[in-house]
Amino acid sequence: MPAADLAWMLAAFGLVLLMFPGISFFYGGMLNSKNMLNMAMMVFGSMAVVAVIYVLFVHGMVLGNSVGGAGIIGDPLAFVGMESFMTDASEGDIISVDAYWGAFYILFAAISIAIVASGAAGRMKYWAWLIFAALWTILVYAPLAHWVFAFTSDDGETVGGWMRNVLGLHDYAGGTAVHMNAGASAVALAMVLGRRKNTELRPHNMPLVLLGAGLLFFGWIGFNGGTAAGANFLAGYVVLTTTLSALTGALGYLLIERIRDKHATTLGMATGMISGLVGITPAADAVTPVGALALGFITGAVVALCIGWKNRAKVDDALDAFSVHGIGGIVGALFVVFLGAAAAPAGIAGVFFGGDPSLLWRELIAIVVTCVYAFVVTYLIAWVMNKIVPIRVPDDVEAVGLDRGIHAERAYEMETR
Amino acid sequence: MPAADLAWMLAAFGLVLLMFPGISFFYGGMLNSKNMLNMAMMVFGSMAVVAVIYVLFVHGMVLGNSVGGAGIIGDPLAFVGMESFMTDASEGDIISVDAYWGAFYILFAAISIAIVASGAAGRMKYWAWLIFAALWTILVYAPLAHWVFAFTSDDGETVGGWMRNVLGLHDYAGGTAVHMNAGASAVALAMVLGRRKNTELRPHNMPLVLLGAGLLFFGWIGFNGGTAAGANFLAGYVVLTTTLSALTGALGYLLIERIRDKHATTLGMATGMISGLVGITPAADAVTPVGALALGFITGAVVALCIGWKNRAKVDDALDAFSVHGIGGIVGALFVVFLGAAAAPAGIAGVFFGGDPSLLWRELIAIVVTCVYAFVVTYLIAWVMNKIVPIRVPDDVEAVGLDRGIHAERAYEMETR
Amino acid sequence: MPAADLAWMLAAFGLVLLMFPGISFFYGGMLNSKNMLNMAMMVFGSMAVVAVIYVLFVHGMVLGNSVGGAGIIGDPLAFVGMESFMTDASEGDIISVDAYWGAFYILFAAISIAIVASGAAGRMKYWAWLIFAALWTILVYAPLAHWVFAFTSDDGETVGGWMRNVLGLHDYAGGTAVHMNAGASAVALAMVLGRRKNTELRPHNMPLVLLGAGLLFFGWIGFNGGTAAGANFLAGYVVLTTTLSALTGALGYLLIERIRDKHATTLGMATGMISGLVGITPAADAVTPVGALALGFITGAVVALCIGWKNRAKVDDALDAFSVHGIGGIVGALFVVFLGAAAAPAGIAGVFFGGDPSLLWRELIAIVVTCVYAFVVTYLIAWVMNKIVPIRVPDDVEAVGLDRGIHAERAYEMETR
Repeated sequence: MPAADLAWMLAAFGLVLLMFPGISFFYGGMLNSKNMLNMAMMVFGSMAVVAVIYVLFVHGMVLGNSVGGAGIIGDPLAFVGMESFMTDASEGDIISVDAYWGAFYILFAAISIAIVASGAAGRMKYWAWLIFAALWTILVYAPLAHWVFAFTSDDGETVGGWMRNVLGLHDYAGGTAVHMNAGASAVALAMVLGRRKNTELRPHNMPLVLLGAGLLFFGWIGFNGGTAAGANFLAGYVVLTTTLSALTGALGYLLIERIRDKHATTLGMATGMISGLVGITPAADAVTPVGALALGFITGAVVALCIGWKNRAKVDDALDAFSVHGIGGIVGALFVVFLGAAAAPAGIAGVFFGGDPSLLWRELIAIVVTCVYAFVVTYLIAWVMNKIVPIRVPDDVEAVGLDRGIHAERAYEMETR
Repeated sequence: MPAADLAWMLAAFGLVLLMFPGISFFYGGMLNSKNMLNMAMMVFGSMAVVAVIYVLFVHGMVLGNSVGGAGIIGDPLAFVGMESFMTDASEGDIISVDAYWGAFYILFAAISIAIVASGAAGRMKYWAWLIFAALWTILVYAPLAHWVFAFTSDDGETVGGWMRNVLGLHDYAGGTAVHMNAGASAVALAMVLGRRKNTELRPHNMPLVLLGAGLLFFGWIGFNGGTAAGANFLAGYVVLTTTLSALTGALGYLLIERIRDKHATTLGMATGMISGLVGITPAADAVTPVGALALGFITGAVVALCIGWKNRAKVDDALDAFSVHGIGGIVGALFVVFLGAAAAPAGIAGVFFGGDPSLLWRELIAIVVTCVYAFVVTYLIAWVMNKIVPIRVPDDVEAVGLDRGIHAERAYEMETR
Repeated sequence: MPAADLAWMLAAFGLVLLMFPGISFFYGGMLNSKNMLNMAMMVFGSMAVVAVIYVLFVHGMVLGNSVGGAGIIGDPLAFVGMESFMTDASEGDIISVDAYWGAFYILFAAISIAIVASGAAGRMKYWAWLIFAALWTILVYAPLAHWVFAFTSDDGETVGGWMRNVLGLHDYAGGTAVHMNAGASAVALAMVLGRRKNTELRPHNMPLVLLGAGLLFFGWIGFNGGTAAGANFLAGYVVLTTTLSALTGALGYLLIERIRDKHATTLGMATGMISGLVGITPAADAVTPVGALALGFITGAVVALCIGWKNRAKVDDALDAFSVHGIGGIVGALFVVFLGAAAAPAGIAGVFFGGDPSLLWRELIAIVVTCVYAFVVTYLIAWVMNKIVPIRVPDDVEAVGLDRGIHAERAYEMETR
């Protein structure tokens, strides 16, 4: 990678890193004050577990040569211990950045499992969570990431994942492998765990939710901008579309709230902003600026409607991971299919604009396979674990809250007046 | 733009983006806990509205060719929908970055209206605020930004704003178009709205104020550093002067507090830091490092004195936007006029150092025109809106606080012990 | 510096800048709610004082030519007022970045004194703190930084510090000059000040501690990544090792807590993460990725054990600066000595891997000299100051807390329900 590209990628790493406190506060602030710390512990704990296994063998499963050339899973032995990343084989102006990518990909995996954590909010044993995080990363994330992120090399010597290379999916920065995947997985985990005793929660600290949303927005610039893999035209372009979609995502959500509930809430604004960011993730390079405004607005509005419906459902997807990340990601993917702009960098004309109709079924297959695979395998992992040892905390621990019940701490011990 | 320059600009965008949660917390934390969320809703809501109109036509009003070559306002049709920014016309190593600049300029406009929001703290209807934000951006911000930010091209084919090109203003990064403008506008809006019922507010959450100040400091590095438009000597230099002025701004403010009030406060430190940042904004390239230390110190001290006087005034500029951004910006501009260092990158000798005396009246015209234009037009917009439908919330809504009264939320629902 | 390198360095500056709100919240959140603001005031106040003296003469003491060629202290007159940094002497593609480095080095000095602030938590007069900060920077930090950060030029015209150039210390990014130094100094200051009246403090706001830890992690990427002085292979590599060590630092700490106390706490996770970051600081370029995982884990575990022992000690190093920064830094340095990987970029084989045994005593001398020098001189400064005018606040001020007692403020004035 040329030094200029690396300069932006290093900064992008920093941006994405702040998504972890960001998601801790976004989710934790929405919970009551008795489960705040546990949420952060889940996010950072799983991040640490993912880092360990990623270095040891998962990176090969994601980006290694497909085993048997089948496009199903990469070779876990390809980058054992990331030992081969220690040498600077710079040739001329091209810097070796395998080590950098190793670090960046760890963050992608870790942010995915962090979204799944929302499905377990307030009721999962901590050590069960850490084991689950490892299994999920290996069995759910790694294959999906291989399918989507591993490109077959031009000479065919390295074979990548089937979704990207055989199906020909367009997914700019992980709408499938990260967002739909995590959304569907969160629901599956929530179903195995069962509903919380008390679901009438109100966010205990909205400024913390706002801070989380702000840090996630910041991080997303690194996530989408970094996916351009350098300081190039595409990076500049997706920074624009990502920003626009985030902001109109908020507007779309607020409008639905205003009409339906008579008041627009800060929680709605933050949720809409994240929805707009999810929606643009698969599409950031495939829409016009005005398209990005529309995509965000529609995603925000659709997610607002979904959350309204969901609140009558029985599954306790407490923090709406499926609506925001699952539905949001699907809306973004379908927007490309129907309304993609041929003039945008990706050069994909949507079906409504005379584009190749095959785009529709190719994208639909990717969406359905991603959601079904993630849901089924996640459900199985959690179900099997739960059969061996119950993964839900006892009722008394849930009653006092996981902060005290598990971690022997309280989030706040203050005099406020 | 060469890739290396773009690499820094992309990062600078990220830094500036964190100014939005930053300003939400800086202002919201200073209010009582019943109006915290409304402040964040104003900041992000107006940011979203600005983004929409900016993409549609405002970018042309700011950076488009002056209508009639008059230097008054750019052509709103110049960049409709930012459609023309979708093509990568890279030639050799020069990357097309129009899309990037579109995104960066949206943040400039959005941070300006966010400062104005402080003038409406705790008493403005939300939908009125969003409409006001759109009108203000079009009628106040866009012309001022055109006057200051639009350069006439060397060949004269594109004509820029009169302040920059005819008057020959020196304003490094928006002391006029952003800070003095927003400061004067905030006062005008506050006057139309009238005083709050209860002005004896104490900041409800000082750590939040500190966080806001810290994020603003961080963002200012992107704001001033990014104005250098690349990874160049100037960027490195203004990072130094910006940092120094922020820090001595805090010291100057604390010293006045210590002498006047017998105690130095955290609120004073945060306010002084922001004052130092405002002061250096027009001057970051025109002072020596020691000059930056002095500029920050003087700005902090002057703002501290102004806020002391203002607290006896009848206008409820609740969060001191005029003192901090108006006076702070003026101090910075005058510092260049009188004490500019010929050896600094801008190469402007101040009047005290034998510089061109015309600098004085040129800068004074810019200051007076900016403040008067912003004040008058903002006042008119708010006054007319208020005549059509009152823009202030009813008394009962103000009494319960805008978080509950408008957004049906509370910032905090926690057990603290 | 080539533009691409500067692009990353500018961003790294931004990252490091967020360490200051970060450390304010990390430490302030751990205190009770009556001393929160004072901690932030110490951090930012000393940062401002350091900036002033750094520009005036300290930068020369750190990076200037050694006085008398002795390697003891740089020439304080070398960069007076940083006047010589105002000229862009770019030759070809190489940009003059002295001004940039001036700013970056200010942050290094300021973060060091900020760590020392933890030793004074809740009981030091504010103006005494600011004076102490200036003296400490001149008498303790500047010599140590010269010893470690000042390289002798190839032609020998500029002579650097003895530790780096004569002793041949390996210290990637300041394990000695920043962390061991600050850890030992914090203990010395705590001893002169004496114990707090009430040491049974529980962290008043754990989300704030987490936020602080998150911002510190973010900043560390800039700190370690920026030490590579450019967008190069080394920067990419240390981003990986730094991230890994931070995360396993958390795991190591949590494991000890789980075994010893039966519960893993969020405070432990945050402390372990910072410990892992401290540990990797001297070693980021000298270990394999798996080595970084191990180094972090060991550092986290060792620090957890040290804090357990310390809690029975009589010195009130309230926020465990010595355990985290002193012991953590020593563990990292010793890891290189014994387990350094010849294949890592630094190319240092540890003693266990057949490396040069002299590495052991060279590193031990550096550790011992750093800790002893920092401890003794800091103790003397504080002791002498205290003899002239007591530096500890009166008992009644301590009783009401320093926020009210010194700054006439409260951190929180809110309705939480």
